Amino acid sequence: MLSTEVTKRLKIKYPIIQAPMAGGITTSQLVAAVSNSGGLGMIGAGYLTPAQLREQIREVKELTLNHFGVNVFVPGEFTISQNGIDFANEKLQSIKNHLNIADDSFQLPDARKLMETFHEHMEIVIEEKVPVCSFTFGIPSKEVISRLKEHQMILIGTATTVREALENQENGMDMVVVQGSEAGGHRGNFSNSHQESLIGLMSLIPQAVDCVRIPVIAAGGIMDGRGVMAAICLGAKAVQMGTAFLTCQESGAHRLHKEAILQSDEDQVILTRAFSGKWARGINNQFISTMHENEASFPAFPVQNTLTQSIRKTAAAQNNPDYMSLWSGQSPRLAKSLTAEELIQDIMLQVKNIIFD
Amino acid sequence: MLSTEVTKRLKIKYPIIQAPMAGGITTSQLVAAVSNSGGLGMIGAGYLTPAQLREQIREVKELTLNHFGVNVFVPGEFTISQNGIDFANEKLQSIKNHLNIADDSFQLPDARKLMETFHEHMEIVIEEKVPVCSFTFGIPSKEVISRLKEHQMILIGTATTVREALENQENGMDMVVVQGSEAGGHRGNFSNSHQESLIGLMSLIPQAVDCVRIPVIAAGGIMDGRGVMAAICLGAKAVQMGTAFLTCQESGAHRLHKEAILQSDEDQVILTRAFSGKWARGINNQFISTMHENEASFPAFPVQNTLTQSIRKTAAAQNNPDYMSLWSGQSPRLAKSLTAEELIQDIMLQVKNIIFD
Repeated sequence: MLSTEVTKRLKIKYPIIQAPMAGGITTSQLVAAVSNSGGLGMIGAGYLTPAQLREQIREVKELTLNHFGVNVFVPGEFTISQNGIDFANEKLQSIKNHLNIADDSFQLPDARKLMETFHEHMEIVIEEKVPVCSFTFGIPSKEVISRLKEHQMILIGTATTVREALENQENGMDMVVVQGSEAGGHRGNFSNSHQESLIGLMSLIPQAVDCVRIPVIAAGGIMDGRGVMAAICLGAKAVQMGTAFLTCQESGAHRLHKEAILQSDEDQVILTRAFSGKWARGINNQFISTMHENEASFPAFPVQNTLTQSIRKTAAAQNNPDYMSLWSGQSPRLAKSLTAEELIQDIMLQVKNIIFD
Repeated sequence: MLSTEVTKRLKIKYPIIQAPMAGGITTSQLVAAVSNSGGLGMIGAGYLTPAQLREQIREVKELTLNHFGVNVFVPGEFTISQNGIDFANEKLQSIKNHLNIADDSFQLPDARKLMETFHEHMEIVIEEKVPVCSFTFGIPSKEVISRLKEHQMILIGTATTVREALENQENGMDMVVVQGSEAGGHRGNFSNSHQESLIGLMSLIPQAVDCVRIPVIAAGGIMDGRGVMAAICLGAKAVQMGTAFLTCQESGAHRLHKEAILQSDEDQVILTRAFSGKWARGINNQFISTMHENEASFPAFPVQNTLTQSIRKTAAAQNNPDYMSLWSGQSPRLAKSLTAEELIQDIMLQVKNIIFD
């Protein structure tokens, strides 16, 4: 029942990819543990500087001889409006006061600089001979894609609809992750609007599989062998799991973030755009509920993300989960506190049991 | 791999239940064809009068000797505010003008009368010895449940979260349908708010299965053998399929409703509460997009449903899909125009192929 189309190409034993989670979650220990256990570890490079990315790639190489990958955000266009910033800052001020944030200096994002960093990231993955590169929030330019392909890199795109999956295929991606509405963290939609791209995996996988030729990798709410087998029955060739690895012991997620997931129910995980200006799924808390009525009016990503940075950082430092971004998919009841190796072994044991049931 | 827990109890060959779709879709021909083909046909009695329900039950009995079921809406509380009605009527007026609706008389729903009808429905299913009864929009009172159980009726509840599934179990339901966010038509949530109860099946099935003892039936976006097998891998004992049967030849859905589904993509299927006052999933059209900005302010179900009745009826009579409620789940690309028997045979062939792959 298990196809080897993706595992052979990625040179991994099991059809399990650890989702790239930016912001310090995908430590070198986590990435290497996943790759050493038969899956594909992924570095979430979204918020890393070029120097940090190079350092982490080298660190991972020290820890594993197996294949691993790097994920980058494709920079999009955004406008900066002083009115929008003032509006958001006014709404955020009472929280900043509550957390005693005195120094609230921040640097507004610079589109040109973000694009420069993106290109530097691309040069680093080439120089460091990283075998797999995946993309979120868009598709890179044809020039970038052909340059990476010249170096035999395997390219994986992200899609939330069949249309986006087709766009990834047409632009030369070797595989595509379809992100179901169940997924935690940021929505990866780049061409459809938010509501229209919230497709559950039960619908998204088979419709994507019927329309694209490249292998489909399923992401969203998958936590165990049952989810892996379900995704494969629907036509996916592999799965990408975020939340399941976030609560693993090697993950760099804040202790309170892990605990919040381990203690949450599925109906406490909701969508918000108040943290970053992009819709994302996480555990409901004081920040989300306070900001709910204004969230539609906040500036777009990455502007809003910059404006809430001091709140997220201070809350984390103060061990206050009320104002942290507690990203999670819709299956928190299935989360466990294991090592990445134990998790992968558990999953594959369950897969075997289902196949031979 | 296929458990017989649900099929044995329901006395059906295959773990496939045809979702009860109110409003004339579940014709006696469709219900009987499903039951004659090894599945469980269900009469959607939501908007039927007691006399109509009794007549349809007798008609189905003429057409099949196999088990079938009846689904009823559990009447909920609602308030009628003249301000709310005036607001909605004002917003709907231009559409009524556009459709040349002259006689716009309507009878506001009466909570006491709806409860009376519900009790009459219950007496009819008892008198007619209907073997299976399922419930949407809530859980009936303990008295109703024990009375139905005295008559050996098999009771199936509907849930959109683990909490609601547990409530169904605690109240004596024999099985529970978990409705994923993928599902078409009305959301069945009755205790959680809309956003919190939009859980994709990839997440909802395993979390529900882990928490309840009664068998879980999966509904939402399932259209073929791949979906059936995925649901079963996740722990469901059977599936309930709506949209897949809606486009079948025996279904009473409007020709243009069937065509709209057969021609739609997954990202054209969105949520609206403008038709009925309850959130429901259907194909985006002129009515939904025009009403979008005001939908949150419309009166609750069933008041808004009454106010839009003339629009929906007239649009259907004029063959104008722009103002009809084109309910659909998130997998319209997988819809086919088959007989119910052909559909069920196709599904079971695919199931076999997946198991023996």
